[in-house]
Amino acid sequence: MESFETAAPIIVLVCSLTALLFSFIKFYSVKRKSEGTDMMKSISVKIRKGAMAYLKRQYKTVGIFFAIMFFILTVLAAKRFLSPFVPFAFLTGGFFSGLSGYVGMNIATYANTRTANGVRDGLNKGLKIAFASGSVMGLTVVGLGLFDISVWFILLKFVFKLNINDVMTAMLTFGMGASSMALFARVGGGIFTKAADVGADLVGKVEVGIPEDDPRNPACIADNVGDNVGDVAGMGADLYESYVGSIISCGALASAAGLGFNGVLVPMLIAAIGIIASIIGTFFVSTKEGATQKSLLGSLRRGTYIASILSAVGSAFLIFTLLPDNSNVIWAVISGLIAGVMIGYFTEYYTSDSYNPTKNLAKSSNTGSATIIIDGIALGMSSTAIPVIIIGISVIISYFTAGGMASFEDGLYGVGLSAVGMLSTLGITLATDAYGPVADNAGGIAEMSGLPDIVRERTDALDSLGNTTAATGKGFAIGSAALTALALIVSYTDKITEMGIELNLSVTNPAVLIGLFSGAMLPFLFSAMTMRAVGRAAQKIVVEVRRQFKEIKGLIDGKAEADYETCVDICTKSSLKEMIFPAALGILAPIIVGLVLGCNGVVGMLAGALISGFALAVMMANSGGAWDNAKKYIEAGNFGGKGSENHKAAVVGDTVGDPFKDTSGPSVNILIKLLSMVSIVFAALIATYGGMGLF
Amino acid sequence: MESFETAAPIIVLVCSLTALLFSFIKFYSVKRKSEGTDMMKSISVKIRKGAMAYLKRQYKTVGIFFAIMFFILTVLAAKRFLSPFVPFAFLTGGFFSGLSGYVGMNIATYANTRTANGVRDGLNKGLKIAFASGSVMGLTVVGLGLFDISVWFILLKFVFKLNINDVMTAMLTFGMGASSMALFARVGGGIFTKAADVGADLVGKVEVGIPEDDPRNPACIADNVGDNVGDVAGMGADLYESYVGSIISCGALASAAGLGFNGVLVPMLIAAIGIIASIIGTFFVSTKEGATQKSLLGSLRRGTYIASILSAVGSAFLIFTLLPDNSNVIWAVISGLIAGVMIGYFTEYYTSDSYNPTKNLAKSSNTGSATIIIDGIALGMSSTAIPVIIIGISVIISYFTAGGMASFEDGLYGVGLSAVGMLSTLGITLATDAYGPVADNAGGIAEMSGLPDIVRERTDALDSLGNTTAATGKGFAIGSAALTALALIVSYTDKITEMGIELNLSVTNPAVLIGLFSGAMLPFLFSAMTMRAVGRAAQKIVVEVRRQFKEIKGLIDGKAEADYETCVDICTKSSLKEMIFPAALGILAPIIVGLVLGCNGVVGMLAGALISGFALAVMMANSGGAWDNAKKYIEAGNFGGKGSENHKAAVVGDTVGDPFKDTSGPSVNILIKLLSMVSIVFAALIATYGGMGLF
Repeated sequence: MESFETAAPIIVLVCSLTALLFSFIKFYSVKRKSEGTDMMKSISVKIRKGAMAYLKRQYKTVGIFFAIMFFILTVLAAKRFLSPFVPFAFLTGGFFSGLSGYVGMNIATYANTRTANGVRDGLNKGLKIAFASGSVMGLTVVGLGLFDISVWFILLKFVFKLNINDVMTAMLTFGMGASSMALFARVGGGIFTKAADVGADLVGKVEVGIPEDDPRNPACIADNVGDNVGDVAGMGADLYESYVGSIISCGALASAAGLGFNGVLVPMLIAAIGIIASIIGTFFVSTKEGATQKSLLGSLRRGTYIASILSAVGSAFLIFTLLPDNSNVIWAVISGLIAGVMIGYFTEYYTSDSYNPTKNLAKSSNTGSATIIIDGIALGMSSTAIPVIIIGISVIISYFTAGGMASFEDGLYGVGLSAVGMLSTLGITLATDAYGPVADNAGGIAEMSGLPDIVRERTDALDSLGNTTAATGKGFAIGSAALTALALIVSYTDKITEMGIELNLSVTNPAVLIGLFSGAMLPFLFSAMTMRAVGRAAQKIVVEVRRQFKEIKGLIDGKAEADYETCVDICTKSSLKEMIFPAALGILAPIIVGLVLGCNGVVGMLAGALISGFALAVMMANSGGAWDNAKKYIEAGNFGGKGSENHKAAVVGDTVGDPFKDTSGPSVNILIKLLSMVSIVFAALIATYGGMGLF
Repeated sequence: MESFETAAPIIVLVCSLTALLFSFIKFYSVKRKSEGTDMMKSISVKIRKGAMAYLKRQYKTVGIFFAIMFFILTVLAAKRFLSPFVPFAFLTGGFFSGLSGYVGMNIATYANTRTANGVRDGLNKGLKIAFASGSVMGLTVVGLGLFDISVWFILLKFVFKLNINDVMTAMLTFGMGASSMALFARVGGGIFTKAADVGADLVGKVEVGIPEDDPRNPACIADNVGDNVGDVAGMGADLYESYVGSIISCGALASAAGLGFNGVLVPMLIAAIGIIASIIGTFFVSTKEGATQKSLLGSLRRGTYIASILSAVGSAFLIFTLLPDNSNVIWAVISGLIAGVMIGYFTEYYTSDSYNPTKNLAKSSNTGSATIIIDGIALGMSSTAIPVIIIGISVIISYFTAGGMASFEDGLYGVGLSAVGMLSTLGITLATDAYGPVADNAGGIAEMSGLPDIVRERTDALDSLGNTTAATGKGFAIGSAALTALALIVSYTDKITEMGIELNLSVTNPAVLIGLFSGAMLPFLFSAMTMRAVGRAAQKIVVEVRRQFKEIKGLIDGKAEADYETCVDICTKSSLKEMIFPAALGILAPIIVGLVLGCNGVVGMLAGALISGFALAVMMANSGGAWDNAKKYIEAGNFGGKGSENHKAAVVGDTVGDPFKDTSGPSVNILIKLLSMVSIVFAALIATYGGMGLF
C-alpha cells in the first residue's frame, strides 16, 4: 500500500495534466479554423480586445485586494491563527480561478467568429467549433482545479511530511482564494454584461428602433463583450470554485470521519476519473447535416450521459477497491450525479417555452406588464420546491448509505461525496454550458457583418439550444453550490471542534438563531446591491449611447462608425467599481457576525445564508429564464408576435429578469460558498476573539 | 399568596372584560353619529351587505374545516396524543379570532360613512370617528384574546385542578384554532381585496378611463368591500393570533424555566396592564381644527407613546413584585416595546414618500416600468437588513437580561416576554392601524356620493396618514410574528423534550438541515400560490366588468346602475376557493415533514420558514408599500405627474406591489406561526410515528 499512497496523488496530477493537454490541443484546433470575412475578423478583434481589456483591469483591481488579503493572512499565520501555507494557497487558488476564466474567455473570443464562419458551411461544423471551445473551458476548469489540489497535496504530504489530518485541515482553508476571485468575476462580469445589454436595448431597440446587435448601436460591442466576461469568465471562475471546494471539503470530512488516507484520496480520484470520462464524452458530440434542434440537443446529451455512466462505473470500481468496508458510499456519488441531472431537467422545465410554465407566462402578457411580472415572480418562487426536495432526497440517500445511522461523521462524508459526484463530470457539463455564449456571440457577429440570413438562422438554432444547456448548467451550478456549501459548513464545525471548542449548534441557541436570521437576510441584501449596481451602470450606458446618437453625425444612417470603446470603457469602470461593496459584504459578514455572535453564530449564519440563498438563487434564475423565453415565444409569433402590446409587456419582464438571472442569482451561489470559506479561514481568530464574552 | 393565586387570573379576566365593555361603548358612540345623505347611506349599506355576505360565507367554508379538524383532534385526544381540552380550545380560538375580525369589520362598515359625514364638519370630527372605530377593533382583539386565555386558565387550574405545568402544556396547543382562522381570513380577505382592486383598476382606470371609486365602475363596491374584509377583518384575525400566541408561549416558557405560577402569570398580567394603558392612551388622540398632517400624526403617536410608557411602568412594578429574583426581565419587556416601535419606524422610512428610498424609487420611473420594478424589488430586499438587526439585538438583550448566561430556559423566557412586551399595547397600536381602511372607505363614499371636493381633500389627509400608520402596523405585525414564532418553536422543543424524547437540533444534523431547506422554501411556495390566486380572481373580475360595460346600456353615461352584487359575488366565490390550497399547505407541511424527518426535522423546518419568511414578508411589504407611495408621489405632481409616462410606469409598480403587500406578505406572517401551532398540536403523533425509522 505504501507505493499506492505515493502513486495515487501522482495519478491525480497526471489526470489533471491530461485535461490541460487535451484542452491545449482543442484550443489550437479551434484557432486553426478560418475566421471568415475581414468584417467578421475586425468585429471579433474588437470584442476580444474589449473583453481582454476588461479582464486585465479586473485582475488589477482584484490584485490589490489579493495583496491586502495576503498581508492579513500572513499576519494571521505569523500569530499562529492559520497554517503558514494558507497565504500562498490563497494566492494559487485565486490565480487558477482567474486563469480558468481567462482561458475560457480567450478561447470563446476566438471561437465566436470561427463558429459564425463554420455555420456558413453547415450546422454540424458550427456546433463542433462552438462545442470544442466549450470543452477547452470545461477541461481547463477541472484541469487547473485538480492540478492545484494535487500539487498542494503532494507538497504538504511528501515534501513537508504533514500527517493526513493536518494536510486536510490546512487544505480546507485553500478555497478562499478561489471563492473571492469567483465572486469578483461573477459580480463584476454580471454587472458588465447586464449593464451593456439593458443599456443597449433601452436606447437602441426602444428609443431608436434598430434591431439587436445592429452595428450602429454604440453599445453593441460592449454587449457582446459582456457575454464573454459575464457568462464565460464569470461562470468559469464560479464552477472552478465549486469544484475545488467540493473535493477539498469532502477530503476534510473523510479525515474527520477517520477514514484515513484512502478516504481522503477517494474524492480526488473520483474527480480524476470524471476528467477522463468527460474527455471520452466529448468525442460523442457531433451531429449529421440537416439536424433538427432536437437532434442537436440529443447529441450534446449523449456526450454528457456517456461521461456520467463512465464516471459512475469508474467510481464504483474505485470505491470497492479503496473503501471495501464503506463501499455503499458509491450510492452517495451516484445520487449526486442523478440529482445534478434532475435539477437541470426541472430548471429547463420551468424556463423553456416547450413546457407549460413558460407558455402560461407568455399568455399572462395579455393583461400587460404588471401581470407578467407577478406571474414570473410566482413562477420562480414555486420552482424552488422541487430542487429543495431533490437536494433533500440526495442528502438522505448519501447520508444513510454512507453509514450515517451508525456514525454521524461517516454519513457526512457521504454528503460530501455526493457533491463530488455531482461535479465529477464538470469537464463536459461545463462544455455544453459554455458553448452557449459562443453561439450567441457568433450570431451577433453574423448580424453585425451582414452575413446571409441562413447563417443567422443556423446560429439562432445553436443559440436557442445554448439557452437550454445554460438552464441545465445553472441548475447544476446551484445544486452543486448547495451541496458544496453544506460540506463546507460541516467541515467548519469539525475544524472548530478540533480546536477543542465545544459547539452548541442547536437552533434554539440564541447565537445560532440570530445567526440564522442574519444569514437568511444576507442573500437578500446582496441581491439588492448587485441589482442596483446593474441599474446604475446601465444608466451610464444609456446616457452615453444617447450622446453618441446625438453628436456623431451620420451614425444613425450607417455612414459613420460608433465609438464602441467608450461604451466598453464605461461598462468596465462601473462594473469594477460596483463589484467592491457586494464582495466586501461577502468577506466582512462572517467576520462581523463571528465577532458579535461567536462560532455558533457563524454556523447559524452560514446555514441561514445557504437555505435562503438557495431558494432565492433558484427563484431569480428561473423567473429570469422564463421571462426571457416567454419573450422569445411571443417573438416566434404567439400572442400577437413581435411589436404587439403583449410583446412590449414581455420585454419589460425580460428586462427585469436580466439582472435576476445573470447578475444577482448566480452571484448568490458564490456568496454562500465564499461565506463558508471566509469563516473557515478566520476560524481560529473568531474562536479566540468572537462572541463578545456572551456567546 | 394563595389568595393572590386565585385573584390574579380573575384580575386578568376583569381587564379583558373592561376592554370589551369599553369597545362596546365606543361601538355605540360611533353608531349614534349621523350617516349623512341618503346617497351615502345607500352606498354604505351596499358595502356592509357585501362585506357581511362575504364573512358569512367565509365562516361557512371555514366551518367545514373546523368541523373536520375537531373530529381529527377528538380522535387524537381519544388516543391520548392530545389533552382532551384541545378540540374545544381549538374551537374557541377559531371562534374568537373570527369574532375579532367580524366585530372590527362591522364597526368599520358603520364608521366609514359616519367619518365621511364627520369631515363635512371638520377634520377633527372625522379623525375622532375613524379612530374610535379603530379602537373598537383594537380593544376587541385584545379583549377577546385575553378573555379566551383567562377563562381557559381559570377552568383548567381551578375547576379541573391541573398543576401549572400541565395547564401550560395544554394551553400551548390552543393557538392552532386562532392561527387557522387567521390564515383563512388573511388569505381569503387578501385575495378578495386585491382581486377587486386590480380588476376594477385594469378595466375602469386603464381601459375605460374613469377615476377610482367612480360609481359607474361595477367593481367599485367590491373594491370597498375588499378594504374591509382584507385590511380590517384579516388584520384583526392576524393580530389576535399573534397576541394569544405570544402570551401562551411565554407562559409555557415560564413553566419550562421552573418559574412557577408567578412566571406564568406575568405575561398575562402584562397584557392586562397593556389593555388599561391602551384605553388611557385612546383619550389622548384628538386634534385641533386646522390640523396639518404632521399634527394629526403627532396626535395618533401621542396616544401610542403614552400607552407604551404606562405599560412599561406598570410592567416594571409588576415584575419587581412577582419576580423579585428575576427582576431584570423588565428589560426584555422594554426591549420588545422599543423593537416594535423601531421596526415600525424603519418600515415607514422605506415606504413613505417623505424619505429618500421612495423618492428615488419614483425617480427610477424615468426609464420605464422595468427599472421601477427592479429598483422596487431591490428596495424591499435591502430593507430586510435593519429589521433583522433590530430583532437580533432585541433577542440578545432579552435573553441575557433574563439570565440566559446562567440558565438557558430563563433566557428563553426573556425572549418570550419581549414578544409580549411588543404586543402589550396592541389595543392602541391596532387602533391607529385599523383606522386607515375606515378613512380610505370614507374617501370612497365621499367620491361615490358626490360630496364637495373639500370633503374628499380631508378624507385624503386622513387616508394618507392611514398609510403611514398602516406601514407602522405592518412592521409591528411582522416583528411580533417573528418573536412569537420564535417563542413557539422553543415551546415546541420543550414539549417534545417533556415527552422524554432527546432532540438533536444541531444544524449539522441531516434531519434539521433538510428541515431548514424545506422550511425556507415554504414561504416562497406559499407566496407564489397566493399571488397567482389574486391573478386568477382578478381575471374573472376583468371579464365581468367588461361584460357589464358592454351589456348594460347607459352605464358609461351614468344613466344606468351597475350590477355591483355580481362583482362582490365573484370576489367572494373565488377568494374562498383560492384560500383552500395555501391554507392546506400551512397545515399539511409540518405533518408531512414530521412524518418524513421526525421531530428534529420539524424544528428545522420551523426555523427555516421563520427566517426566510421574515425576510420575504419584510421585502414584499416594503416593496409594495414603496411602489404605492412612489405612484402617489408622482401623482402629487413630481416627475411629470398624473398621466405622464413616469406615472404609467409607477402604476405597473403599484399593481405588482398590490398582491405583495396586501396578500402574500401579510399571509406569510401567519404562515410561520400556523406552522408552529400545527407542529405543537401534532407533536405527540409525530413523536410516535415520524422519521421513517431513520431520523
